[in-house]
Amino acid sequence: MSAFSENQFRKDPISGQWVIIIEDHDHFKKLLELSNERKQPFKVEKTKYSEGFEQNTPAEIFAIRDEGSEANKAGWKVRVIPYEQPFLQIHGDLASHGIGLYDVINGIGAHELVLESPKPNVRIPELETEQVEYVFMAYKERILDLKKDVRFRYIIVQNNHGEAFGDLKYHAHSHIIATPVIPARVKNTLQNSLKHYHYKERCLFCDIIFQEQTDKSRIISENEHFIALSPFASRSPFSTWILPKFHSAFFEWSTELEDLAAIYHDTLVKIGTVLNNPNYVMVLNTGPNMITGQDRDYWKTLEKDYHWYIEITPRLRSYSSFETGSGIQVNVVPPEKATKILNEN
Amino acid sequence: MSAFSENQFRKDPISGQWVIIIEDHDHFKKLLELSNERKQPFKVEKTKYSEGFEQNTPAEIFAIRDEGSEANKAGWKVRVIPYEQPFLQIHGDLASHGIGLYDVINGIGAHELVLESPKPNVRIPELETEQVEYVFMAYKERILDLKKDVRFRYIIVQNNHGEAFGDLKYHAHSHIIATPVIPARVKNTLQNSLKHYHYKERCLFCDIIFQEQTDKSRIISENEHFIALSPFASRSPFSTWILPKFHSAFFEWSTELEDLAAIYHDTLVKIGTVLNNPNYVMVLNTGPNMITGQDRDYWKTLEKDYHWYIEITPRLRSYSSFETGSGIQVNVVPPEKATKILNEN
Repeated sequence: MSAFSENQFRKDPISGQWVIIIEDHDHFKKLLELSNERKQPFKVEKTKYSEGFEQNTPAEIFAIRDEGSEANKAGWKVRVIPYEQPFLQIHGDLASHGIGLYDVINGIGAHELVLESPKPNVRIPELETEQVEYVFMAYKERILDLKKDVRFRYIIVQNNHGEAFGDLKYHAHSHIIATPVIPARVKNTLQNSLKHYHYKERCLFCDIIFQEQTDKSRIISENEHFIALSPFASRSPFSTWILPKFHSAFFEWSTELEDLAAIYHDTLVKIGTVLNNPNYVMVLNTGPNMITGQDRDYWKTLEKDYHWYIEITPRLRSYSSFETGSGIQVNVVPPEKATKILNEN
Repeated sequence: MSAFSENQFRKDPISGQWVIIIEDHDHFKKLLELSNERKQPFKVEKTKYSEGFEQNTPAEIFAIRDEGSEANKAGWKVRVIPYEQPFLQIHGDLASHGIGLYDVINGIGAHELVLESPKPNVRIPELETEQVEYVFMAYKERILDLKKDVRFRYIIVQNNHGEAFGDLKYHAHSHIIATPVIPARVKNTLQNSLKHYHYKERCLFCDIIFQEQTDKSRIISENEHFIALSPFASRSPFSTWILPKFHSAFFEWSTELEDLAAIYHDTLVKIGTVLNNPNYVMVLNTGPNMITGQDRDYWKTLEKDYHWYIEITPRLRSYSSFETGSGIQVNVVPPEKATKILNEN
């Protein structure tokens, strides 16, 4: 264990969460070993999600296809299908009611699967940047489409890489989920960025980017439109955020997907090199659905106060008793150290 | 999977979190199987925490002892010692500063271990109610003492039963943690209860208890001073709350520990019977340290608007991709069903 004098509580201004930052190399090595054990083999001939087996999956909702190819046939780059075991159903009214003190809403929603490549056994680092751009194009199209549905208040795009079951285990994919409620986690970030905007008349995220560009110790990389950095109150070793350097509340309004694909790919290559291709969670945070919330106070300045971003969190944790009880996470690799290690590779 | 028409989003008025409630018996059976695999053997001759081995542990901070017995010798019922691998250190100033936008506080705090019995291999259900009362007496004394330290804003008492390492694996224990910050999880509940108080001039928790007593479908048991219930927006199968039926913001002001020990013991016996003695997390939520926060607005009505309670969460989960990304948890055993099953046993 490192010298205690260096331990710090750091507060993430976006989530409002406190994190304990400790430098503890032995602990980190142990987490890395566990991470290696945790990984599943990633080699299989084909999966039901591979090109040529489209008849084994539900009909596609969207696909980026070779010219002239037919829907639900071979010839695609990225394919979006309904998730087969959804917790939510797409049909039904948004019936919301109270039971005394309590609030209830029907379990409606959408849950879609993005197949990130026609081939199994590949991960983002092994894809061409162009293919990664197709993945972001698919996210964009699906979010734009799902946001037309006034029942949905929030669209989540995420990827629980390496932790899937069945055939999905071998096939790079992400989830797109539309819900009629805004998750409490997201609401906190919306409230914190709104509070900052009221106080400063500036976007909290833009201020963070400016401060990080001045400080430099947590910047992993930059290109024309994007920045990748280790957050100041990083909750987990090698957590990384990718943000547009220009102000933008909605990912789906972006036209700079080539630049985004490049920095996303490079970041995952760096993380893969340093941590031996760990399992990871990717969450794309974009602003909520404005159509459904126009009448609400905190929507008024949303375009100005919120800023979309991507979080990549390598699965390098086991929660201690301390963390379970307190809700305060402990990160044994300070973000400045993580940045340094990533940049040496 | 059950009929979709029954799925509901339910909002927990205390945490503000939405939960999806689905009845899915097959899924529950799978979780129960995983829970059984997860459990570690619970039989060992003795541990370093057993009576008679006091010299192998740090010196005690507090103990409930037989009359005439000496500190750090045999003759105790419950013993509190410093945790040997703390993330926080007790010594040091509460130095808080900003780095531009960011907030930093020194990593000070306390982390203590409560040994719940002088013998290994016993769990709460196997203890006499009197012994369980001693455990609560120890919590109370330690919280009262730690709250005298003006550096600490919050004291957490929790128990990650069955998930410990080393000798602690075999010895019933809980953790008491004092931090100079209020965890975001706790802050949310404080804000929600304050909001309710401002609106209704009543305690949110007292209102919930009244509604549950009228509805009856989620009450597991009651005695003179306490009630055990399945929360309406229960985040996990068989999650259970124990609350004082009288209004009280601070556990450590309680004098009804005999009644508390009885309902806590009975609840864990019921859960143990139905779920085959699962691992579980217990969190005791008491009001934050008023000494350190008297000057803050939201402390003014704390005594009136907050209500202490215990959460017991059996470890019956594996987080799906949906939950990881959305932060919306899915519970496959509706709380009304859990209540029914617990009450049949």
